[in-house]
Amino acid sequence: MKKGDKYGVHRVLEPRGTLPQPALKLNNSTEIYDNEILIDVEYLNIDSASFERLKEETGGDIEKLKNRIMEIVEERGKMQNPVTGSGGMLIGKVEKIGPALKDKIDLKVGDRIATLVSLSLTPLKINSIKNIEPEIDRVEIDGKAILFESGIYSKLPTDMPDTLALAVLDVAGAPAQTKKLVKEGDIVLILGATGKSGLLCSYVAKKQVGKKGKVIGQARNDKRAEFLKSTNVCHEVIVADVLKPTEVLEKVLEVNNNKEVDLSINCLSIPNTEMSSILPVRDGGIVYFFSMATSFTKAALGAEGVGKDVTMIIGNGYTKNHDKIALDVIRESEALRKIFEEKYVK
Amino acid sequence: MKKGDKYGVHRVLEPRGTLPQPALKLNNSTEIYDNEILIDVEYLNIDSASFERLKEETGGDIEKLKNRIMEIVEERGKMQNPVTGSGGMLIGKVEKIGPALKDKIDLKVGDRIATLVSLSLTPLKINSIKNIEPEIDRVEIDGKAILFESGIYSKLPTDMPDTLALAVLDVAGAPAQTKKLVKEGDIVLILGATGKSGLLCSYVAKKQVGKKGKVIGQARNDKRAEFLKSTNVCHEVIVADVLKPTEVLEKVLEVNNNKEVDLSINCLSIPNTEMSSILPVRDGGIVYFFSMATSFTKAALGAEGVGKDVTMIIGNGYTKNHDKIALDVIRESEALRKIFEEKYVK
Repeated sequence: MKKGDKYGVHRVLEPRGTLPQPALKLNNSTEIYDNEILIDVEYLNIDSASFERLKEETGGDIEKLKNRIMEIVEERGKMQNPVTGSGGMLIGKVEKIGPALKDKIDLKVGDRIATLVSLSLTPLKINSIKNIEPEIDRVEIDGKAILFESGIYSKLPTDMPDTLALAVLDVAGAPAQTKKLVKEGDIVLILGATGKSGLLCSYVAKKQVGKKGKVIGQARNDKRAEFLKSTNVCHEVIVADVLKPTEVLEKVLEVNNNKEVDLSINCLSIPNTEMSSILPVRDGGIVYFFSMATSFTKAALGAEGVGKDVTMIIGNGYTKNHDKIALDVIRESEALRKIFEEKYVK
Repeated sequence: MKKGDKYGVHRVLEPRGTLPQPALKLNNSTEIYDNEILIDVEYLNIDSASFERLKEETGGDIEKLKNRIMEIVEERGKMQNPVTGSGGMLIGKVEKIGPALKDKIDLKVGDRIATLVSLSLTPLKINSIKNIEPEIDRVEIDGKAILFESGIYSKLPTDMPDTLALAVLDVAGAPAQTKKLVKEGDIVLILGATGKSGLLCSYVAKKQVGKKGKVIGQARNDKRAEFLKSTNVCHEVIVADVLKPTEVLEKVLEVNNNKEVDLSINCLSIPNTEMSSILPVRDGGIVYFFSMATSFTKAALGAEGVGKDVTMIIGNGYTKNHDKIALDVIRESEALRKIFEEKYVK
């Protein structure tokens, strides 16, 4: 059996030597290398940007959609939308585990898993598409996929439906990183606390800070603020426009005895909120950006411009046990589970 | 005397309530608020992107250039290029210090300083332009500027020429942050070690890691590698193409007993080097991005894609005492002083 590269570089056909994600074509042979996992795929969850684009291209015709997906996967050896560059994730059963991996991981043949690395870097072979459910971006297939040694995954829980688990796993990095970062007694600001990752982060932060700390959640209007208060995941709720950094700062100072916070966590999904994340934080504090709309230069130059000696961290979607940490929130909090079921499960 | 906002929001005329940097027009009155510093300006160092643009616009005619600069400052109350959005810095003497600041800072009237916040947020009034030296982007003026309470500055040293001090202060954040981050015994990779900030970071990192640690410097070709070796600021020098992450990883492993590093510091100025910074770092390690060409999403999604549990930090140009830390490198190292004088002093 051949030895594979940790990151899957051995599967790249074009251009040689690059990583699988930027590669144009992967080898999707189902014969595994010694450090790979073969997955018998149940269904793909296509990334919504990609799926919208595919629906447009095919005018919503299911047969055309099936053909287009088959075409892309045949051409690239992976389900990466040529226009959006994005992928999605997949659910399936472990069929084979390479001998070099077997004793290092907590998986066994037959386990049902969700891959948490993008389809845009996952070798995939589709024999046939059985069904498409366009309203939930789901493509049921008969096919196989390969997970590299560096690939992350989560065993699917048996105590909740797939759809709920996937909604949580989608943002699992945020609460897990919050757990790592937030210390007892910290004063924490959560921007976008009423959203999917904001709720999970607030919940985890509140547990971490304990009785001496405080979690301040930001909402964009009174209605969202009322909702946030009803969840009880924050100690304080402020209403502020995140595009107005000085307004955010003022509202934070008002509920925090005129003091800056130790840490802010940006869970928003809109651009130009860097300064609203930076201004309320004390010198020596931490700013954590989960928002994919964050601009590196706006953050770097912004902090310098206001002379803020803060540590700014790029949100990493992966950290050890992030799946378990996020799923445990939903197991612990009935209120959040209910909100997720109502709002985020399609 | 009126009380001013820490960040200078009281000086913003248009649009009200925004911070001075994104503002279209600032109040450049030389009557100071209680927490401001009035500076008698000697010269402006226009940001080179802005200066190139101005030269283009005016066809290199010095009188037209003077008029254009006067025009911009009259219109905006600050020297912010309307096209590039960038500013630069200024050198001048402290003329007045607001009473609310007087006892909090280490400045006195008459001190010669360089402002380290951008001209794009600094209220400026120009009476006349005395001289322009286009080859060093310098504009000598008779005029006044205002520094806000949050504004950062550095007292100009008397043991080196302005030009040398400015070349060092320009990248002062990088070595200062390196000093904070790097611990004894660490294995550190510096990408772009042969450049201006790379040399300073390597020097500081080598001091920090001590005898048990190691600093690995990356150079883009043999010639640059020879130069880097001659400076003696790194323990090991590798030649690798930063656009090929797997090549960088291999070269690092070769000189580090097949082990990943604790920390990588990206001092490059080219795009698409996120993965080259992430791959060589061990789980639990740190990736520090100083490069302004860093893409937030490429870093965030890239780390997740390869399942790397690393902390990724956005380079902050400011940290406490960053000016002194950087200038001290040049005071300590004759070799680096000589390189800076030859290569970076115009």
